[in-house]
Amino acid sequence: MGDRKRVVILGGGFAGVYTAIALEKAIGRDSDVEVVLVSRENYLVFQPMLPEVISGSIGITDVVSPIRRLVKRTQLHMRDVEAIDLERKVVVANPGFRPQPHLIRYDHLVLALGSVTDFRGMRGLAEHAFPFKNLVDALALRNHAIRAIRESAIESDPAFRRELLTFVVAGGGFSGVEAVAELNDFVRGLARSFPTIDPKEIRVVLLHAGDRILPEMAPNLALFAQKILARRGVEIRFNARLEAATSGAAVLKGGERIATHTLVSTVPAFPHPLLEALPLPKGRGGRLKATAEMQVEGTTDVWALGDCALVPMINGELAPPTAQHAIRQAAVAAHNIVATLRGGPRRTFTFTGLGKMGALGHRSAVAEVFGIKISGLLAWFMWRTIYLFKMPGWGRRVKVASAWALDLVLPPDIVELRFGASRGMSQEHFEPGEDVFHEGDVGDRIYHVLTGQAEVLRQRNGADELVALLGPGDWFGEGALLNETTRGATVRCRLDLDVLSLPKKEFAVLAASLPDVRRSFDQILEKRGLNKDGWPRPVPNPLAGAPAGGAPSG
Amino acid sequence: MGDRKRVVILGGGFAGVYTAIALEKAIGRDSDVEVVLVSRENYLVFQPMLPEVISGSIGITDVVSPIRRLVKRTQLHMRDVEAIDLERKVVVANPGFRPQPHLIRYDHLVLALGSVTDFRGMRGLAEHAFPFKNLVDALALRNHAIRAIRESAIESDPAFRRELLTFVVAGGGFSGVEAVAELNDFVRGLARSFPTIDPKEIRVVLLHAGDRILPEMAPNLALFAQKILARRGVEIRFNARLEAATSGAAVLKGGERIATHTLVSTVPAFPHPLLEALPLPKGRGGRLKATAEMQVEGTTDVWALGDCALVPMINGELAPPTAQHAIRQAAVAAHNIVATLRGGPRRTFTFTGLGKMGALGHRSAVAEVFGIKISGLLAWFMWRTIYLFKMPGWGRRVKVASAWALDLVLPPDIVELRFGASRGMSQEHFEPGEDVFHEGDVGDRIYHVLTGQAEVLRQRNGADELVALLGPGDWFGEGALLNETTRGATVRCRLDLDVLSLPKKEFAVLAASLPDVRRSFDQILEKRGLNKDGWPRPVPNPLAGAPAGGAPSG
Repeated sequence: MGDRKRVVILGGGFAGVYTAIALEKAIGRDSDVEVVLVSRENYLVFQPMLPEVISGSIGITDVVSPIRRLVKRTQLHMRDVEAIDLERKVVVANPGFRPQPHLIRYDHLVLALGSVTDFRGMRGLAEHAFPFKNLVDALALRNHAIRAIRESAIESDPAFRRELLTFVVAGGGFSGVEAVAELNDFVRGLARSFPTIDPKEIRVVLLHAGDRILPEMAPNLALFAQKILARRGVEIRFNARLEAATSGAAVLKGGERIATHTLVSTVPAFPHPLLEALPLPKGRGGRLKATAEMQVEGTTDVWALGDCALVPMINGELAPPTAQHAIRQAAVAAHNIVATLRGGPRRTFTFTGLGKMGALGHRSAVAEVFGIKISGLLAWFMWRTIYLFKMPGWGRRVKVASAWALDLVLPPDIVELRFGASRGMSQEHFEPGEDVFHEGDVGDRIYHVLTGQAEVLRQRNGADELVALLGPGDWFGEGALLNETTRGATVRCRLDLDVLSLPKKEFAVLAASLPDVRRSFDQILEKRGLNKDGWPRPVPNPLAGAPAGGAPSG
Repeated sequence: MGDRKRVVILGGGFAGVYTAIALEKAIGRDSDVEVVLVSRENYLVFQPMLPEVISGSIGITDVVSPIRRLVKRTQLHMRDVEAIDLERKVVVANPGFRPQPHLIRYDHLVLALGSVTDFRGMRGLAEHAFPFKNLVDALALRNHAIRAIRESAIESDPAFRRELLTFVVAGGGFSGVEAVAELNDFVRGLARSFPTIDPKEIRVVLLHAGDRILPEMAPNLALFAQKILARRGVEIRFNARLEAATSGAAVLKGGERIATHTLVSTVPAFPHPLLEALPLPKGRGGRLKATAEMQVEGTTDVWALGDCALVPMINGELAPPTAQHAIRQAAVAAHNIVATLRGGPRRTFTFTGLGKMGALGHRSAVAEVFGIKISGLLAWFMWRTIYLFKMPGWGRRVKVASAWALDLVLPPDIVELRFGASRGMSQEHFEPGEDVFHEGDVGDRIYHVLTGQAEVLRQRNGADELVALLGPGDWFGEGALLNETTRGATVRCRLDLDVLSLPKKEFAVLAASLPDVRRSFDQILEKRGLNKDGWPRPVPNPLAGAPAGGAPSG
């Protein structure tokens, strides 16, 4: 044990997992080197397959590969990395069941942390847009789409019904195009089961900042993709940049709003925030500067590869952030780490890429392979075949192939999974003119203004009368606390508004436990002329029911 | 539209869905009668298949059937019923995307609300036990079991490791036995992928209040089931009644504690709480008294069937709560409702049952069919065949059959889905002697005592020194607010303790927004000699990240 060396890999994407696979092979059994892989999830996501979760044509968990099945001797720690100490050569990960800090010592560190979705600086996106990065994101989007469709089927207000039937995807790169193609096929297929929905009411919009989609591909393939998407009913908006989001709209640069309750953003990908803090050389987009040997420039025990690294290719360009490149980089990194530990010659990264493919949903795709451009059914067939063989493990391949075969004859799966339904304290964003709630709405949350300004309006003789203005620090919606079941006024955003909202049930518990909270609120209620004796009474188990079904906590 | 009659069915189980199916058939197209089905979920769960979700041998969503595929002309409202007004003939359901009350008028009302899991009166069960009733329950249990196994593989403390590898299921009826059998197969199969886990460390316990399991079945079949379970490694505890649960233990009547982090309870099934409030005749267990014509006694427009009703059989007994009985009751109810609306003779319920079956996991089962008792591989094969054909719809049958076929050759699926991971305000239960947290633990929650008593202990010269006693209304763990990363003392339960806990992040937001909260806490901190200037500073979007991936709210 004493002089056993430990290689710690951070990141469970293709770069990290394939480094572990290559290391296991290079090291052999009963060895002087142990490998630890730290991953957030216990499965490897193959991004291009993620949209298949939306349609449910493959079993939900078959789109991904459990890491445990790919590496046998690697220690897998399913953790978030909280800190990296390069001097003491220790990684700090979050606690598991036991509330103890989880420290992992290393001799060699492999940084394969990929990129993260980061909505910082975009108004309301963190609160109201669906990211599309991992399996749970895809499942959440699928369930939301099912909900929007079935709610529209029993919605009597035609304007609200159209909003429910509008789906917006931002980002015209591979992942945005593949997501919008699957989402479009899915919602249109699903709507056919609802006799009350007219297919013409469905609107699926792709927002793209440039003037043609798939900038990674040859222009004629991108044009083909545009034509196919348009024929299937996807409305492509060019030179349209998403600027903000609310619960009811996608706001474009320039001010245009598209009323929707389903906004997906595939756009902002940043390197993992941990890298920012590390004193290592970084280049474009904050990515780590690596050598062609996968070592971080200027270090001897830190390696970097995949989407979080800038890796030079032999043609002088930087390697693009794709799985095929990450896998080849992983092989080089593993070889060189073993060469460093045991001695021997090093290798450099010489891979230049095989080609590019993008699925367009129902039996169409575009591909550029070995310089040949293919589109349509043939490309789609190639896409499925190649990606099937890219999935690690035969078991999964058989499952996916049989699911695909059945999918050709069976209707789409529409089972809606409702998990984590209870929304606790949360933040919401509103743009000017939007209503937080309407007079007469059912309400069971109270709100606190963080930034911005709102108007309190009451209907008088058919017109909205301004009753009050609300600013940062103000509370509203407190009528809900007093067992009022409907809102007594409308609250409308005047200036970009960020509010914090809290369910009445949770707030009542807090107020019962903290006398000062109770007192502050009694003052607010008194000032507004509301009867402060109407507080709901605290109950013995105020949250029972809410956490049931959740995991017992360790 | 004016004189179109509306039948509203409450409940999306076999009773409700098959009433809708039978009504659609009896009514025909372009009709004078419309059917509305109100269901919590958009799918029909076949309870005996639910344990298959644990092992993942069938695709997660293939265990259930989307209701939309079974009824074409019925209006499906996916809602919780909040109130029933029998006089005004209106059902009130919860709002959807729009915060408006959802009112549904009816001419005939069918109550098929089934039973609910209700942990009332059992200490800590609502907080710490997994229910096992619907698809999301089964998924949550599956994910939790995967987590416990993989955490145990990297756990260094042997006692904690054994706790993680202990799984307890309460209830020796059909659902408890089927759940424990699948769970046992799954965790033992899963553990084989982890070289650091010794199979002998795994403990799977079935708690049963009686002296033999499966009381519904003939004694020799129950004995067979007991033998099979025991051979597979399930420890059956007879005459053992679950009394309380904590995050670290199952507490039995008599005081014995089984240290575990995974407790499943299939026991308490009560009629839907809404029925309590209805002025209708009820019998044993609060179930509605129905006639053999499925009408609630003494009414002309209210019908009841399935698990929430007491339906007389021709042999004088009451119909048991099974799907096979609910389906036959549904046909009778639908016929009689149409007969009432259009005139014609009524029918009565004459079904007496076909048989009983229970799966015992890996290729074994017990069955009593037409008076014949079968056990082992043959019974298991029968179980699969019969239940396959009980699944509504050919598509699903083909999918399930092919998944079962693949399952014979493929290893279990171990993809862990982490949804709703962020735990907001929650309640926890502790039994005397248990620690809420230890000195030196990492901590990011603060606690409020609701009931009970706790001791604050500090290590002094190797012994625990009592520093303070805490009672109802007291707060503790407030050091976490001051950016302390580890707990400065141990808090141990002295008398049955119920606490409310709140993440530090959420609390800091509240304190920043409500000056009085801040002031109350400053006082607490001052009293305990802590520096009140250490409060974390409020950040612009304090909850960003937390709700991302959640559904945008409407």
